[in-house]
Amino acid sequence: MNEELETVFEEIKTLLAGKQYAALSQYVRELKPADIALLFEDISREDVTLLFRLLPKDTAADTFVELEPERQQQLIDAFSDTELKAVLDELYLDDTVDIIEEMPANVVRRIIRYSSPEMRKSINEILNFPANSAGSIMTIEFIDLNAKMTVDQAFEHIRTTGWDKETIYTCYVIGADRRLQGVVTVQQMLLCDRSLKIGDIMDKNVISCKTTDDKVDVAHMLDKYDFLALPVVDHEDRLVGIVTIDDAIDVLTEDATEDIEKMAAILPIEKTYLRTGIFETWKQRIPWLLLLMLSSTFTQKIINSAETALSACVALTAFIPMLMDTGGNAGGQVSVTVIRGLSLGEISFSDWLHVLWKEMRVSLLCGFTLAFANFIKLLTFDHVTLTVAAVVCITLLVAVIFAKIVGCLLPIAAKRVGFDPAVMASPFITTIVDSLTLLTYFQVARMLLHI
Amino acid sequence: MNEELETVFEEIKTLLAGKQYAALSQYVRELKPADIALLFEDISREDVTLLFRLLPKDTAADTFVELEPERQQQLIDAFSDTELKAVLDELYLDDTVDIIEEMPANVVRRIIRYSSPEMRKSINEILNFPANSAGSIMTIEFIDLNAKMTVDQAFEHIRTTGWDKETIYTCYVIGADRRLQGVVTVQQMLLCDRSLKIGDIMDKNVISCKTTDDKVDVAHMLDKYDFLALPVVDHEDRLVGIVTIDDAIDVLTEDATEDIEKMAAILPIEKTYLRTGIFETWKQRIPWLLLLMLSSTFTQKIINSAETALSACVALTAFIPMLMDTGGNAGGQVSVTVIRGLSLGEISFSDWLHVLWKEMRVSLLCGFTLAFANFIKLLTFDHVTLTVAAVVCITLLVAVIFAKIVGCLLPIAAKRVGFDPAVMASPFITTIVDSLTLLTYFQVARMLLHI
Repeated sequence: MNEELETVFEEIKTLLAGKQYAALSQYVRELKPADIALLFEDISREDVTLLFRLLPKDTAADTFVELEPERQQQLIDAFSDTELKAVLDELYLDDTVDIIEEMPANVVRRIIRYSSPEMRKSINEILNFPANSAGSIMTIEFIDLNAKMTVDQAFEHIRTTGWDKETIYTCYVIGADRRLQGVVTVQQMLLCDRSLKIGDIMDKNVISCKTTDDKVDVAHMLDKYDFLALPVVDHEDRLVGIVTIDDAIDVLTEDATEDIEKMAAILPIEKTYLRTGIFETWKQRIPWLLLLMLSSTFTQKIINSAETALSACVALTAFIPMLMDTGGNAGGQVSVTVIRGLSLGEISFSDWLHVLWKEMRVSLLCGFTLAFANFIKLLTFDHVTLTVAAVVCITLLVAVIFAKIVGCLLPIAAKRVGFDPAVMASPFITTIVDSLTLLTYFQVARMLLHI
Repeated sequence: MNEELETVFEEIKTLLAGKQYAALSQYVRELKPADIALLFEDISREDVTLLFRLLPKDTAADTFVELEPERQQQLIDAFSDTELKAVLDELYLDDTVDIIEEMPANVVRRIIRYSSPEMRKSINEILNFPANSAGSIMTIEFIDLNAKMTVDQAFEHIRTTGWDKETIYTCYVIGADRRLQGVVTVQQMLLCDRSLKIGDIMDKNVISCKTTDDKVDVAHMLDKYDFLALPVVDHEDRLVGIVTIDDAIDVLTEDATEDIEKMAAILPIEKTYLRTGIFETWKQRIPWLLLLMLSSTFTQKIINSAETALSACVALTAFIPMLMDTGGNAGGQVSVTVIRGLSLGEISFSDWLHVLWKEMRVSLLCGFTLAFANFIKLLTFDHVTLTVAAVVCITLLVAVIFAKIVGCLLPIAAKRVGFDPAVMASPFITTIVDSLTLLTYFQVARMLLHI
């Protein structure tokens, strides 16, 4: 938050303490909804209710959408039935659905009761779409035009129906069967002759998505084509809604966060960190920790079986952490790069050979650099014997090569068989690479040290 | 890529082979620029030049922008001077600058030579902004209005000047001194009375950024306020450009990728994985690998100093990997969560006590769960003595608590002192937690096993 905003918040708090409502109303009206929502996280429940009532109707609704669910629920509890209805009337369908998804059952019942019958039907339809589908994030408030309209008539249509639409800039041309015939932007309409027919200026090659398409794919499409909105059609190709760019950004941000969480062996949930309770956080983290811990049985067995070698040359134990960490880090680097590339569509399955060939060369470069640096350090700084240094450095080279190859192939293979590549990130690969590294280590030690 | 598109690409390739240019022209015109760019990555250099010449002028420019730098350079090399000038005339300033930044010097000279003098001046100005600033990603093609205009006059102004503007939907109202007085959207103008004055309907509380603001912060602002464009002002508060939503999305995606790379101990670069050469990839990865490898000297010293304990109870060695990995995974989980939260602005420095308190409780929950599960496994499955099991499980608990605390505090502390929190992710934390874990392990072992 910038300082200017912080100063304004302080002044508002002073006015609140002094109950100077006229000045307050003026102040708050100058803020954007996103900033009022920030302010509302920072003041008491009573003050939130009070300030909310001072807001103009549309600002109030826009602010409501930006609030954390806890605050939304508190406000709904404080609302009279008329106030609730007023806010609901101003909300877009997709926002109403988002709110409903976060509220407890009794609040949902109240919201549904005060929605119009038409709205209620639409809410139910959207709630029925699978959680990750385009249908679940679309809005039904869009502008539809007729191909026979002139541009002037289209503007008149926008003027009369545009008040409650989430975006008016991209308009969809549909026939009597509600099938999409074309798309036309307000930019095109503003720049051309007003007497032209919509059917003559519209783009007939419409890019659309299906209600059941994955919402992340749909968000990537908006990004790829630089669209402000993408039409959503049902399985009979009838236009049923649009996904707008602001929702696409949220989906992309959420998806990046999810990928990051999965890469760090966390089960993703939609809540932000500070809003997640400690038991929920525990549930996000413990499954992978347990699984990875128990899978350490392999490294444990490998070390046990090398007991003779280790007691013959105790110095070997001291390098186990270094070898394991370096292998883990090297594998993590490539798996994370490949996972992100897959996620952004920069890498696909058909590139696997290209990726493997690249990683083999990079791993040789990295492996030799590390082995060389370590060899010098072992001889000059740690004063180990030449043979022990050789054992450690050969293992290091092999570990880095293993790590890079496992790290690039596992995510691509996962993607191919329909698993989530993000799960194949560092912690998982570390466990595999650890075992391979230790096996190599003791094998090389036995050969060179004759133990 | 979806199947429909693949079929179209196959047909185009067949037409290319058969030299059926009339049909080709028709086919290619039906594709969106982003898809033509995909096709161009897939066909020969000669075919790219040929197809490019079949495109309508504006589609050609839009396609050119979407191409990989290699393809852009090949096309520029193939262009006649007239063709180059035609493409340059259609490009937006921010896209021209992006292209220039990727081209070798001789190509840049050619581009500059065929740009208009005015364009050349603007290109130089933008190139002079720091790489991560709002100035470096802004475009100067926006609509400016006068507060005294009526809505009708504003529409007329848009109609005559809107052809080469990146967005016409958000218009900026400026005075004679070019200072920003307000902002008005085409939506507002379309829905209100055409005889109203712009000064009366514009929003005077304009949110803007400075040319020197960080581009990531600016992208977050567009997201936060759901803007399609954000005005950029210079240090005298004069409007000099706008940042549009499509560029903001690119910045956010790049930023997430950079964070992910840093978390995996990779030095970020802007190129995609497949376009990065093996030496560049090596340079991205080797610094952290080397540093982290050399820092393993600590764990090595700790193990060496515990030689007596380890030779007295060889079984202890076998659990080192499990303890280290679990500590690393537990630390990685929290550091990654906190880093992402900081990056999205969901967590700030003032939350540090809140975060610490939460992590202490979560680490107790996780630690006890893991220690308990491991205790059972050690006694029933591995048949170790009760005391060894106790040593391992006590260390495990302590390691998880250490890991969670270090993992949450380091990124927040880094942010506070102005370092990049993303660097404080798993690999770095693993190295610290490894040392703490091993120290605890041997201390507990000495106490309980009396060695």
